[in-house]
Amino acid sequence: MKAVFNSRYIGSKEEEDLSGITMLGCPLDATSSFRGGSKFGPDSIRKASWTLETYSPYLKRDLGDIAFYDAGNLEVRPGDLRYSLDSIEEAVREIAAQGTKPLLLGGEHLVTYPILKALHRFFLDVQVVHFDAHCDLRDEYEGQKLSHATVMKRVKEVGIQDFSQIGIRSGTRQEFEELLPVDSPAALATRLDLTRPVYITFDMDVLDPSLVAGVTTPEPGGLMFNEVMEYFSVLMGMNIIGADIVELAPDYDMTFVSSVAAAKVAREILMLLHS
Amino acid sequence: MKAVFNSRYIGSKEEEDLSGITMLGCPLDATSSFRGGSKFGPDSIRKASWTLETYSPYLKRDLGDIAFYDAGNLEVRPGDLRYSLDSIEEAVREIAAQGTKPLLLGGEHLVTYPILKALHRFFLDVQVVHFDAHCDLRDEYEGQKLSHATVMKRVKEVGIQDFSQIGIRSGTRQEFEELLPVDSPAALATRLDLTRPVYITFDMDVLDPSLVAGVTTPEPGGLMFNEVMEYFSVLMGMNIIGADIVELAPDYDMTFVSSVAAAKVAREILMLLHS
Amino acid sequence: MKAVFNSRYIGSKEEEDLSGITMLGCPLDATSSFRGGSKFGPDSIRKASWTLETYSPYLKRDLGDIAFYDAGNLEVRPGDLRYSLDSIEEAVREIAAQGTKPLLLGGEHLVTYPILKALHRFFLDVQVVHFDAHCDLRDEYEGQKLSHATVMKRVKEVGIQDFSQIGIRSGTRQEFEELLPVDSPAALATRLDLTRPVYITFDMDVLDPSLVAGVTTPEPGGLMFNEVMEYFSVLMGMNIIGADIVELAPDYDMTFVSSVAAAKVAREILMLLHS
Amino acid sequence: MKAVFNSRYIGSKEEEDLSGITMLGCPLDATSSFRGGSKFGPDSIRKASWTLETYSPYLKRDLGDIAFYDAGNLEVRPGDLRYSLDSIEEAVREIAAQGTKPLLLGGEHLVTYPILKALHRFFLDVQVVHFDAHCDLRDEYEGQKLSHATVMKRVKEVGIQDFSQIGIRSGTRQEFEELLPVDSPAALATRLDLTRPVYITFDMDVLDPSLVAGVTTPEPGGLMFNEVMEYFSVLMGMNIIGADIVELAPDYDMTFVSSVAAAKVAREILMLLHS
Amino acid sequence: MKAVFNSRYIGSKEEEDLSGITMLGCPLDATSSFRGGSKFGPDSIRKASWTLETYSPYLKRDLGDIAFYDAGNLEVRPGDLRYSLDSIEEAVREIAAQGTKPLLLGGEHLVTYPILKALHRFFLDVQVVHFDAHCDLRDEYEGQKLSHATVMKRVKEVGIQDFSQIGIRSGTRQEFEELLPVDSPAALATRLDLTRPVYITFDMDVLDPSLVAGVTTPEPGGLMFNEVMEYFSVLMGMNIIGADIVELAPDYDMTFVSSVAAAKVAREILMLLHS
Amino acid sequence: MKAVFNSRYIGSKEEEDLSGITMLGCPLDATSSFRGGSKFGPDSIRKASWTLETYSPYLKRDLGDIAFYDAGNLEVRPGDLRYSLDSIEEAVREIAAQGTKPLLLGGEHLVTYPILKALHRFFLDVQVVHFDAHCDLRDEYEGQKLSHATVMKRVKEVGIQDFSQIGIRSGTRQEFEELLPVDSPAALATRLDLTRPVYITFDMDVLDPSLVAGVTTPEPGGLMFNEVMEYFSVLMGMNIIGADIVELAPDYDMTFVSSVAAAKVAREILMLLHS
Repeated sequence: MKAVFNSRYIGSKEEEDLSGITMLGCPLDATSSFRGGSKFGPDSIRKASWTLETYSPYLKRDLGDIAFYDAGNLEVRPGDLRYSLDSIEEAVREIAAQGTKPLLLGGEHLVTYPILKALHRFFLDVQVVHFDAHCDLRDEYEGQKLSHATVMKRVKEVGIQDFSQIGIRSGTRQEFEELLPVDSPAALATRLDLTRPVYITFDMDVLDPSLVAGVTTPEPGGLMFNEVMEYFSVLMGMNIIGADIVELAPDYDMTFVSSVAAAKVAREILMLLHS
Repeated sequence: MKAVFNSRYIGSKEEEDLSGITMLGCPLDATSSFRGGSKFGPDSIRKASWTLETYSPYLKRDLGDIAFYDAGNLEVRPGDLRYSLDSIEEAVREIAAQGTKPLLLGGEHLVTYPILKALHRFFLDVQVVHFDAHCDLRDEYEGQKLSHATVMKRVKEVGIQDFSQIGIRSGTRQEFEELLPVDSPAALATRLDLTRPVYITFDMDVLDPSLVAGVTTPEPGGLMFNEVMEYFSVLMGMNIIGADIVELAPDYDMTFVSSVAAAKVAREILMLLHS
Repeated sequence: MKAVFNSRYIGSKEEEDLSGITMLGCPLDATSSFRGGSKFGPDSIRKASWTLETYSPYLKRDLGDIAFYDAGNLEVRPGDLRYSLDSIEEAVREIAAQGTKPLLLGGEHLVTYPILKALHRFFLDVQVVHFDAHCDLRDEYEGQKLSHATVMKRVKEVGIQDFSQIGIRSGTRQEFEELLPVDSPAALATRLDLTRPVYITFDMDVLDPSLVAGVTTPEPGGLMFNEVMEYFSVLMGMNIIGADIVELAPDYDMTFVSSVAAAKVAREILMLLHS
Repeated sequence: MKAVFNSRYIGSKEEEDLSGITMLGCPLDATSSFRGGSKFGPDSIRKASWTLETYSPYLKRDLGDIAFYDAGNLEVRPGDLRYSLDSIEEAVREIAAQGTKPLLLGGEHLVTYPILKALHRFFLDVQVVHFDAHCDLRDEYEGQKLSHATVMKRVKEVGIQDFSQIGIRSGTRQEFEELLPVDSPAALATRLDLTRPVYITFDMDVLDPSLVAGVTTPEPGGLMFNEVMEYFSVLMGMNIIGADIVELAPDYDMTFVSSVAAAKVAREILMLLHS
Repeated sequence: MKAVFNSRYIGSKEEEDLSGITMLGCPLDATSSFRGGSKFGPDSIRKASWTLETYSPYLKRDLGDIAFYDAGNLEVRPGDLRYSLDSIEEAVREIAAQGTKPLLLGGEHLVTYPILKALHRFFLDVQVVHFDAHCDLRDEYEGQKLSHATVMKRVKEVGIQDFSQIGIRSGTRQEFEELLPVDSPAALATRLDLTRPVYITFDMDVLDPSLVAGVTTPEPGGLMFNEVMEYFSVLMGMNIIGADIVELAPDYDMTFVSSVAAAKVAREILMLLHS
Repeated sequence: MKAVFNSRYIGSKEEEDLSGITMLGCPLDATSSFRGGSKFGPDSIRKASWTLETYSPYLKRDLGDIAFYDAGNLEVRPGDLRYSLDSIEEAVREIAAQGTKPLLLGGEHLVTYPILKALHRFFLDVQVVHFDAHCDLRDEYEGQKLSHATVMKRVKEVGIQDFSQIGIRSGTRQEFEELLPVDSPAALATRLDLTRPVYITFDMDVLDPSLVAGVTTPEPGGLMFNEVMEYFSVLMGMNIIGADIVELAPDYDMTFVSSVAAAKVAREILMLLHS
C-alpha cells in the first residue's frame, strides 16, 4: 500500500546532507501585545505549500531543482524567553557552521534577533532587507527590552547597520526618524551593495491585510502580492545568506489565504536562497 | 495596583472641556435592507484603535497633540426611528453650540441626515465630501422615505447642494444621473471651495470589500486604503467642521481587519478635524 | 398577502420562452484536489445577486432590459462523473438548439469541457476567453484524464485552439510553455477576431484571494475587480455565445464577499451576452 | 434537461389549494436589543430542511403524507414597525379564514403578537405553549411597548391567559413572578386542556446555545434537543391550530447546525399540525 | 538542535514492525450529498491528538503502553471511486495479513465497505458495532449503489449480518424497519457474542452536533461524549479486530472542538484494540 | 445628550468604596502550550454581561442588591512572567487588606497561584473548590515550574491542602493519583467544612466544549451548565472569600456563546461572594 504524510514543505528533500538550505520552524509566541498565535505559523505554511505548484512563473525556477531540507520545528518554551532565544541562536549557528543557509519560519518577529546574532559572526558585513508594516525600532516596549516591537533596535546593537526597510507604515514619530526606508524596487537596487551578503526578514504584515488578515497586528495600506514579487526580482542573483518569514497567525484567517500567501513567499525565497 | 480600561478611543482626553473635538457613537441600526449589525460599530472602532500607533506617517501628526473627547454612545431606540433621529440631531446641535467639532461613529448611514440637519444651522454654506460605494440618492426605498438608501436625498432637502461623491459604484440609472462624482484627488481639490466649511461623511463600504468585508452591503471594486489617504491629504488644512464614519458591521469580519481599517480612518479624520 | 421567494437570480424572467439567455446551475464538485464546496456556488450567487442593483455603471445597462431565464440547477451525481458530464453536455446542446445563450454557474471548472463539447458543434470557430489563476493544461492529474486541472487540455482535444488566457499565475513549467497568455485589455482586443464567436470561461480564482477567498484553490497575486471590468469592456459588443462562472466555494468565505463578487461578475456577463 | 430549485421547505406541495397547512416566512428584524439577523431565518430553515429526511423516527410520520404549502416570505418594512405588524396580522387572518393552519417562520419573537391577534378571533379559547429562554413579559423595553422582550405581555392584552411556559431561565424578578412555568412533559400534559385549541410559539433560544448558537440572545442552561422531542410527544394528537418558530439568527452560527436544528423543529411541528 | 514534527498521532511508534495496531488515513471524499471535506479528517485528528494526554481516565490505560504505528494517508483518487475503494480493500488486506489490527481514519463512511470486504475474509463471524446518526441502509442513493448513504446495505451483501446500531436518528421509514438498534450500554452487552470478533465503525455524527458540528450532515439529538464512553466500557476486553472513525469534516468547525473529539474517540479505540 | 459606555460589568458600582467585592481583570497569557488568547477574556466577559439580566432565577438574587466594583484590568507584561505574577499577588493583597473580596477574571490559570499566595496570608485555613477539565498537578511542564499545567501543584506548596476537584477528565496517571475529586453536589456538601473559608477557582474548560468552545484546551466530556448551577447551590451561604474565572479564549468562539457562559458564571459567583 502507498501511504504518505504531507507534513513537510512541498518538494523538500528527505535527507539533510543533500541540501544547501535548511528550513526550520521557530514557534516563538511570547511577547505579542495584541493577539498571538504565531506559534502555529510554521505548520500552517507547510500545509499550505501543498496547494501550490513547485514551479514559479515569477522567478522561472522549480523547487524540484533546489536541494532544501525541512528540519521541523525547534523546541521553544512558553514562559522562558531567554531559553528560547538561546536555542534559536544556537540552532542557526549550527546550520551556518555546516555551510547551509537557514530559512526560519516564525513565530513572532523577535526570532530575527537571535538569528542575526548567530549569522553576524559568519557574515560581518551583512545587509538586512526588512519587509514590515511596523518600524520595530523602539528601545523598549511595555517595559521590555526584548519584544517583537524592539527587534530591529536589538539587531542594530549586534553591529548591523545597513537596512532597507520596505512597506513600513506604523510607528512612533521617533521610530520614523530612525527609519531607513526604501520606496520602490528601483530604490532597493540602488541601496544594496552587490558585493555583500544579504539577509531577508519578512514580516507577513507588510502585505495588505486584505490578503493577509492572519497576522498578530494587521495594518491597512500594505503591499500587494505582486509588489513583493517585484522587490524579489531585484534580489534575484544576489548573495542571499538567510531569511525568515514571521508573524503569520493562521487561526485569525479562517479562509486559509494568509497561510497560502506565506507559503508562496516561502517558495520564492527558497528560489532566491538557491541563486 | 495599576488597573485600566481601554474602552475609549486611544489618546482621547479624560475631560470634555479640554477638547475641540467630540467623538460620539450613534449605534442606529434600523433600516438595513440586507444584513445589519452597524450598532456594534462604535465600540469595535474604539477597541481596534488600541492596535494602532497614535502617530500618523501619512499626515505626520500625533493624537497626543490633539485635544479630543470620547463621549460614549448615544442612546437610540430600536423600533422608534423618529425618537432616534431626533436624539442624534439634538446631540449634534449641543456639540456644535459649545463650539466643538463632532466626529460621529455609526451606526447606519441614515445618521448623516440628522447630523447635517443640525450642522446646517451653524454652517449654511457647508460642502459635503461623501465617500461611499452607493449613491444613496433614492427618494424612497422599500416604502420608506427615511432609509440608509435615501440619506443623501434627504440631506439635499435640508438645503445642502454641494457634494463631492467619491468611490460610488452602485445605484439605479436615475441615481447616477443625479450623482456629483469626483474621480481623483486632483478633481476633489478643484471642486472644493477653500473658503467654505467642509463636512466628511465616510461610509466604510467605499473601501474595497477585500479590506473591509465587515459592512452591511459589500460592493466589489472599491477604493484601496492608500487611495483614501490621498483624498485625505487634499482635505488637510481645509476647514473641516465635522465628520462621520458609518456602516461598519464588525461581526461580519471575523478577522477584525474591518474594524482596524475604520479605526485608522478615524485617526486620520481626527487629524483633519484638528487642522 | 404578498409573499415572495428571492431564490432566482435578480431580474430573471418568470418564463423561459421570453428569454434569449438561459442561466443554469451545474453543481459538479467531484475532482477537487484540495478543498471542495463548489457545488454550493450557484445558489450562493443567486442569493448574493439580491444585494446588487440591476443597473451596471460599468456597462451602463440594466438587467431590466435583458430577457434571461434562470432555469435552476442541473441534477448531477456525486460519484458518477460520466453521468454528470453527459447531463451537462446534453443540457447545453438543448439550450443552444433552441437558440438561447447559456450562462452556466459551476461547480468546478471541469464543467467547461462538456459545455464546449456541446457548443463547438454549433460554433465551430469559437474563440475562448479564459480567466483563471491556473493553466489547467495538464494532460493528466492525480491519475485522472478528467479533472479541474486538465480541463483546458480536454477542451483543446475537442478541436478548439484559439485561447486568450488571462490572469494565469500557477502551473508547471510545461503548462506555461503551452499557455496562450494575454496580459492587458489592449492585448485582448488585438488577439480576438471580431468576426468569430466568443465563449467566456471565468474561474473565480482569477480574482485576487484578498477579494475572493471562497475558492477551492486560492492563489495570491490575482486580478483586482476593476481590472476584470476593463477586460469586459473590450468584450462589449462582440458576439458572446455563452459563458460560465466556476470554482466559487462559498462556505470558505464567511463574509459572503466572494459570492457577491461572483454575482457581480454574473451581472456583467449577462450584459455582455445580451449585446 | 432536469433542473430544479430547492428553495422551498422539503416536501412542500406545489399548489396552495391542496394543503391544510401554510408555511410563511416573516423576516421581521426590528427591535433586537443585542445582535440581529433573524430576518435571514426563514430561508436558512428552508435550505437546512434539505439535509433532513422527510420521515420522523420521533413521531413516526412522513412529510410525504402531509399536505402543506410553502408560501414564501411576507414583505416587511425595516423601519416601519406598524406596517409590518399589520401585514403579518392580515396574512394570518387570510390563512385562517381559508381554513388552513399557519406555521410562521420568524423573524423576531414580536411576530407572535400580530399572529395571535389574528388567530384569537377564530379561536377564542386558545392555549399557548411557549418555548423560550426569556420571559418576554416586560411591559416596556428600551422605551418601547412593542418589542421582542414584551411580546407575551402584549399577547396577554389580546385576551389570551392560558400559557405553558417551558425552558424559561432569564428575566427580571417581576417577570418571574408573572411566569406560568411548566417544568416537565408530564406537567405539560396536566396543564393543557385537551378540549381546547393549542398554539405553539417556539423561540429557538429555548434550546441550549451549545446546539443553537445562532440566536439573537444566547442563554446557557437550555433544553437539549431530545427534551424538546419529549414535550412534542405530549402535544401529538392535540388540536394544534398554528405555530411559529422565531429568533433564529443563522449568520451567527457558521457551522449551519442552528439552522438544521430549526428545520428539524419545523418538521416535527408540521407533523403536530397535521394530527 | 532539537527539532521535531508532530504530524503523527501522539504516542505512535516510529517503526511499523513493533506494532500490533496500524493507523491509516483514508481521505475518500467522493459521494457526499450535502457538504464535503471529510478528506481533511485524518490529518486534523492527528493534529488534535497533541492537545490530549496519552492517559485515559475512562479506560485507565496509557498510549505509552500500546504499540501502534501511524502509517500516514492512503492515496485515493478524486473522481475514480473504483480505484479508491480497491486501494482501501487491498491496504486493509495487507494489514490484516501481517497480523496487525487496522484503525482507519476517514474520509467518508463509504470506506467501511472495502474495509469490511477485506476483514470478512479473515474474520467470517465478525459482528459490527455501528455508531451513527443515519441508518445508511438505502439500496441506492442519488442513483448510486456506492454511497455514504448505502454503505451498511453493501456491507450486509458481503455476508455480515450481525449489527448493533447505536445513536441512529435519521433515515427513511423503510430503513428504520431494517434497523438493528441498540438503545443502551446494557443492551449492547446483551446483544454481543463474547466469543466472536467485533468491528467498530464510528461515524462522528453519532455525537450531538452541539459537540461535533464539523461533520458532513449534522443531525441534532445525538449522543453526548460521556454516553459514548459508557458504550466503550462495554467493549473493553472484547476481541476488537479493527475499527474506523469517519465523516469528520474539520473545516466546518472553526473552533477545532470536533477534531479534538474525534482524536479523543481515536485514543479510546486504540485502547480497546489493544485489549 | 445621554451617552454611555457599557464597558464595565453590568450592575457594577461607580465607586470603589461602596463595594464589598472587587472585580479585577488579569490578562496574563504567557504559558499556553496549545492556543492562547486568554488575555482577551476579561473584556469579553464584561461585554457579554450586557446580554444578561441582573436577576438570577437560580440563586434568586439581583445584582442590583450587591455592591461590587469593577476595577478594570491589571497591567501585565508579555514576556516578563515574574513581574506579572508579582503584580497580581500585590493587587490581591491590596484588595484583601481593605476588606473586600476579589473576583479575578483571567487570563490563564497560572494567575491562581499568586492570588492564593496573597489570600493564604489572610485565610490560613482556606479550602479550594477547583472546577477544571485538567488536573493541573504536574510538577513541571515543558521545562517550566510556573505553568497553567502546574498551578495546583504550586498552590499546594503555598500550604493549602484542602481541595475539592470537580469535572476533571484529563491528566497523567500520576496526576490522577494525586487528585482529590468530587463527583456530585452531594459529595461537595460532605467534603467542605462549613466553618472554614472557601475559594473558588473556575477554569472555563470544566464546561463541555459543546457550550464553551472558546478555551485554550477544549476537552470533550465536561459539565453541562445546569450541573455547575447545582454545585453553586451547595456553595450558597458558605463563607466564600474570593474567586477566579480563567482560561476563556473568546477569539476561538465566533458565536460569542463562550463569553456569555463565562459572564453568567461570573454573575452567579458575584451572588455567592455576596452571601
